[in-house]
Amino acid sequence: MQACGLIVEYNPFHNGHAFHIEASRKASGADCLIAVMSGSFLQRGEPAIIDKFHRTKAALSAGADIVLELPYVYAVQSSDLFARGSVQTLHEIGVSNICFGSESGDISRFTNSYDVLQQKQSVYQTTLQEKLHLGLSFPEASRYAYQKIGLAASEMDLTKPNNILGFSYVKAILDDKLPIDPLTITRIKNAYHDQAITGSIASATSIRKELIGKEDISETAASALPEVTIQQLRAYKQQAAVWHSWENYFQLIHYRVMTMSEDELAAIHGVDEGLENRIKKTARDTTSFYEWIKKIKTKRYTWTRLQRVFAHILTNTTKDDVQQFVSDETVPYVRLLGMTKTGQSYLNARKKDMDVPLISTLAGTESLLLSIEEKASHAYYSIIPPKKRQAFYHQELQPPIMI
Amino acid sequence: MQACGLIVEYNPFHNGHAFHIEASRKASGADCLIAVMSGSFLQRGEPAIIDKFHRTKAALSAGADIVLELPYVYAVQSSDLFARGSVQTLHEIGVSNICFGSESGDISRFTNSYDVLQQKQSVYQTTLQEKLHLGLSFPEASRYAYQKIGLAASEMDLTKPNNILGFSYVKAILDDKLPIDPLTITRIKNAYHDQAITGSIASATSIRKELIGKEDISETAASALPEVTIQQLRAYKQQAAVWHSWENYFQLIHYRVMTMSEDELAAIHGVDEGLENRIKKTARDTTSFYEWIKKIKTKRYTWTRLQRVFAHILTNTTKDDVQQFVSDETVPYVRLLGMTKTGQSYLNARKKDMDVPLISTLAGTESLLLSIEEKASHAYYSIIPPKKRQAFYHQELQPPIMI
Repeated sequence: MQACGLIVEYNPFHNGHAFHIEASRKASGADCLIAVMSGSFLQRGEPAIIDKFHRTKAALSAGADIVLELPYVYAVQSSDLFARGSVQTLHEIGVSNICFGSESGDISRFTNSYDVLQQKQSVYQTTLQEKLHLGLSFPEASRYAYQKIGLAASEMDLTKPNNILGFSYVKAILDDKLPIDPLTITRIKNAYHDQAITGSIASATSIRKELIGKEDISETAASALPEVTIQQLRAYKQQAAVWHSWENYFQLIHYRVMTMSEDELAAIHGVDEGLENRIKKTARDTTSFYEWIKKIKTKRYTWTRLQRVFAHILTNTTKDDVQQFVSDETVPYVRLLGMTKTGQSYLNARKKDMDVPLISTLAGTESLLLSIEEKASHAYYSIIPPKKRQAFYHQELQPPIMI
Repeated sequence: MQACGLIVEYNPFHNGHAFHIEASRKASGADCLIAVMSGSFLQRGEPAIIDKFHRTKAALSAGADIVLELPYVYAVQSSDLFARGSVQTLHEIGVSNICFGSESGDISRFTNSYDVLQQKQSVYQTTLQEKLHLGLSFPEASRYAYQKIGLAASEMDLTKPNNILGFSYVKAILDDKLPIDPLTITRIKNAYHDQAITGSIASATSIRKELIGKEDISETAASALPEVTIQQLRAYKQQAAVWHSWENYFQLIHYRVMTMSEDELAAIHGVDEGLENRIKKTARDTTSFYEWIKKIKTKRYTWTRLQRVFAHILTNTTKDDVQQFVSDETVPYVRLLGMTKTGQSYLNARKKDMDVPLISTLAGTESLLLSIEEKASHAYYSIIPPKKRQAFYHQELQPPIMI
């Protein structure tokens, strides 16, 4: 059996994702589609709107055969580490292809850009460091560096978030010379950060904006979602009483910061260069999460980076926690969230060739990385009312979802 | 001017406290009554029902001239340390007497008991250690030890909570040979732990029970409270939207424990002998604070001791935080919460003779002990809605209350 990998967040699973699954199956000719998905917290530092299990069910119903969870220490990271963790996970599970969406739909633009970057590595690095020293954020600085080496031209604009992610996947494959053939399909037009829903294909951002803070799913939101997602969103609300957003966590994260010393704050992953002072100083006079980030934000500390930092504070993820993993050559395990019958056959054949353990529950596992996963999921569930919360702790200990 | 000291919690200030103030003034003949009061958290490990500032106002209106705050590291402790911190604070501020309530109203019973304890110290210690090794709680073990040396006789029963506290004050004075004359007045009959209000004199426990979870003050509760406390309770509810009890903190403390490692938990003050495992193990399946403590409680870990441990977890008070202070000879500062004109005259005369700083705000102070105070008060205020919370952080930075 041949497998194709997808790198996803499904926050929530929408029509564009369903299209991506269909098109990837066609482009790769694979028998088995394997999605590696961020769990409770996402690459941009946000809590997922509904838990990973309900998102997994939606994905399996819509055509994915296997859903794996990207560990927290890779998921809530800059695009480079996010891509490395995802690609390595898909490599361990044995995919032949990885297929992602892009504007051009032309993979040669990505691989050519990789060659350019290889040749002009030192110019790129010098420019990047120069700009970082001037106080620019990493995305801004790398934008200048890509421009300098000619990678901001229209055929491969590396200043656009989607292109950056796609390029990071290609780079992770080629850097490690993995036996994976990257593919790209043309994305149905919608800008990554579009704020409003204008048709059946809309950005996840615009869909969340339409969902959060509302009692039920509006018609506008529903128009961009497959039926299975609508079911899962409703089921989750029934079971957990909430859809998650940062504002729900404001009391918890604020309490936490107000009872931490600056030294303790500085031990958290991502809290660098005196950011602990800024976070403490602004805490006293802030009354919402949005207001807080707005007060801390600078040219250098982007909204996304700060959201990631707050996720690490909330989950109590320290520099020590992360350091031992991101420098490893590969992921320490692959966690299975769910599978179809096809997925199961694939795994039965594949399992014996895997170099890292395939796990499907947090029960009886004692590694440090799993304790990080546990902290992350516990923090995520903390806003669910006590009597409803228990079921979620227990779900983490259950076998994978089968549909 | 001559001053008499009172050791109090005023949680809330009730008719019995008003009687204690009157009787202490008479018994001591003092010009100035000085109360040293626990702040946000109390000796038995509970959050105070309303903040220290509103309790200070009630006390000053009802006859106290000065209210001082007992630092958290002494307040939320076993009776010995609680007594030492309180007595040392009153010594630093220069009181001639300390006056406390007791059943007998006879101070010689306390001083005689002290002499007995001095003579039979080794028998007491041996019995205490023996019983502790058998797994008994400290209060239980010391009850046996007091019995063994004859201090459970009816004239001085050291197995009753009130007598234990009174005896701890006398012991703290005599151990350090302080120039303070202890006094005791006969307490109007009501058992310390009475659960129901039966007249105008009722226990603080029964009053809190009658107040917590209700929208307003019932007639039963009002019958045990002076008018000034009724005003302060209402004013606080208006300003903060809550009266504090452990259940209000359940989400926060549960979140905190669920995102801590066992090692981090073991670093918290009071978490000893593998208690961290018990706390973690019971966390997953608990839906209220009451239920949680009930699950952890053993013969050795009393309810009160566990409440103190949870207060230290909530406030992030570590063993390191506490260790440096409780071994010191005296308190590191005296914090003034409020005073009357009489109190002010007294302090003006006394100030120059003090050996430790007299402070009245957390502003501009940087000592470690004050950072512990800050964590404690921040944790305490964390359950107040965000927009109302700010005022309380700022109150900590204001000059003392004057009436």
